[in-house]
Amino acid sequence: MKSEFEFINDLKSRYSLRYAGDDCAVLPKDDRTDLLITADLLAEGVDFQLQWTTAEQLGHKTLAVSLSDVAAMGGSPIWALTSIAVPEALWKSGFLDEFYAGWHGLAREHDVQLVGGDVSRSTDRLVIDSVVGGIVDKGKALFRTGASAGDAIFVTGFLGGAAAGLRLLKDRELTADLSVTEQHILRRQLEPIPHVRTGKLLYEYGLTTAMIDISDGLSSDLAHLCHASGLGARIYADRIPVDPAIADALPGEDGLDLALHGGEDFELLVTVPIGKVAVALDLGFHRIGEMTDRSGVIELVDEGTVSTLVPRGWSHF
Amino acid sequence: MKSEFEFINDLKSRYSLRYAGDDCAVLPKDDRTDLLITADLLAEGVDFQLQWTTAEQLGHKTLAVSLSDVAAMGGSPIWALTSIAVPEALWKSGFLDEFYAGWHGLAREHDVQLVGGDVSRSTDRLVIDSVVGGIVDKGKALFRTGASAGDAIFVTGFLGGAAAGLRLLKDRELTADLSVTEQHILRRQLEPIPHVRTGKLLYEYGLTTAMIDISDGLSSDLAHLCHASGLGARIYADRIPVDPAIADALPGEDGLDLALHGGEDFELLVTVPIGKVAVALDLGFHRIGEMTDRSGVIELVDEGTVSTLVPRGWSHF
Repeated sequence: MKSEFEFINDLKSRYSLRYAGDDCAVLPKDDRTDLLITADLLAEGVDFQLQWTTAEQLGHKTLAVSLSDVAAMGGSPIWALTSIAVPEALWKSGFLDEFYAGWHGLAREHDVQLVGGDVSRSTDRLVIDSVVGGIVDKGKALFRTGASAGDAIFVTGFLGGAAAGLRLLKDRELTADLSVTEQHILRRQLEPIPHVRTGKLLYEYGLTTAMIDISDGLSSDLAHLCHASGLGARIYADRIPVDPAIADALPGEDGLDLALHGGEDFELLVTVPIGKVAVALDLGFHRIGEMTDRSGVIELVDEGTVSTLVPRGWSHF
Repeated sequence: MKSEFEFINDLKSRYSLRYAGDDCAVLPKDDRTDLLITADLLAEGVDFQLQWTTAEQLGHKTLAVSLSDVAAMGGSPIWALTSIAVPEALWKSGFLDEFYAGWHGLAREHDVQLVGGDVSRSTDRLVIDSVVGGIVDKGKALFRTGASAGDAIFVTGFLGGAAAGLRLLKDRELTADLSVTEQHILRRQLEPIPHVRTGKLLYEYGLTTAMIDISDGLSSDLAHLCHASGLGARIYADRIPVDPAIADALPGEDGLDLALHGGEDFELLVTVPIGKVAVALDLGFHRIGEMTDRSGVIELVDEGTVSTLVPRGWSHF
């Protein structure tokens, strides 16, 4: 069966789509600016469960995932459209009011204006489509395609926390009495922070050659970046910044596995030319490996042993 | 219970949304051009039934409804994003390939480029969000707000056919042996034509002061235009261009009722200043009445009797 990534690549080649396939489409806006556009679909029962999230958290996350795509191009988000297919029972409740309160809470922080969207009734499940538009200096958007062999690979923050939060939600009936680390991993899952300022900083300082946000999981998103750049990668197990809260909140869980393959941390994955590595380290980002010319191959070095890392992050199909 | 229109108006006032609420949002693009953006959500079981439409027809209609919104601003569509939440069984079938064949068939006619979108699995129903971007000369977009009392009201084509097609699908098990008029009303429902060229022509000749596309139904969409313009309207029953196929395909059906309240014909509803009425008539558009200063009141004149027309077109809630 075709994966969603194969499907999109197939559409791109069949219809000669020039702009699709990166975190955002990049379109000409004016003489000095390009327009960025991204869409993210969230389906109840698949991408979220209503019993695990408040309406406000869901509104926040809906916008956050799209802002993260704009961040991953080095852009500044400007406007958004949010379309919601909503079952009648949920419509009658105060759900959408709280949803938009959460949405606008994050929108205000980033000065993003809601300019449209659509509301439809759905038969039984909530489905949300989040579209965000942004801007970036003309010709300066950071694609997944710009990496060179030898570039260092960095991630901007800890990984695995969001997946650990999901594990906690799945495995346990939660009580009000949560530990600090449990609360932390739940927030990573339910209230992700889009790194818009970090993306802009990386862009403005010219630190990166390619960038993608980690939404599907490090292994998957690194594979996307390798595919787009026509390269391979080597990463080191002991350098992966596993979220330190995992060991405490989920003792016995394999934190490295969650960090490699769990999605939704929305940290940025960037390639940095050697001359800029010192700056990236000084800024506190985590160097996890380097790009290689072994196209399509991701090597994982673990205690001196090299194995091929097979991407197995989030995929809908 | 709040209607979706009340909900949107409520959001607009609560969050001071400047751009939302017309057929498209109108945003600054460059010195000479504004950007138009519209979103339309189509939910299975509510906005369409899979047993009534081919995948290709659904792809066509998905794009058509959004192109119609761009047409209703006098704009030219340029790019699109299509997001699809799709159940696994449908994903495994060739459904999406045919869907995109239909989508691209219409896109090619209008030189619209697919630039992105998202695919998610859904638990059991198909939900599609169609986003289209377009352009219009700066400051020249045709809003719903520009009508004046005394302007003539025109529609660009026959009404009620799409609703009649829906009636036919609901009432009868269809055989291959359809009459010409039955085929016609089914096409009106399943393969609507977005009047992009007509919208541009009306715009370029400066014929209209306000414009909206008839998606919810004449009575509803006229009410939206009246509300936005702060005016009322008087229309004449014997001037409503009831689709002539209805009488033959659905004998006994009240064609005027379908034309007044049935949606999805995607004809344009426009207000024309008196000095331009002769041109609009010459172009073959249908004059159905005039704008009045009785704010919010739509009068229907039927054989000399005047009654107040209560909008009852399509509403999700």
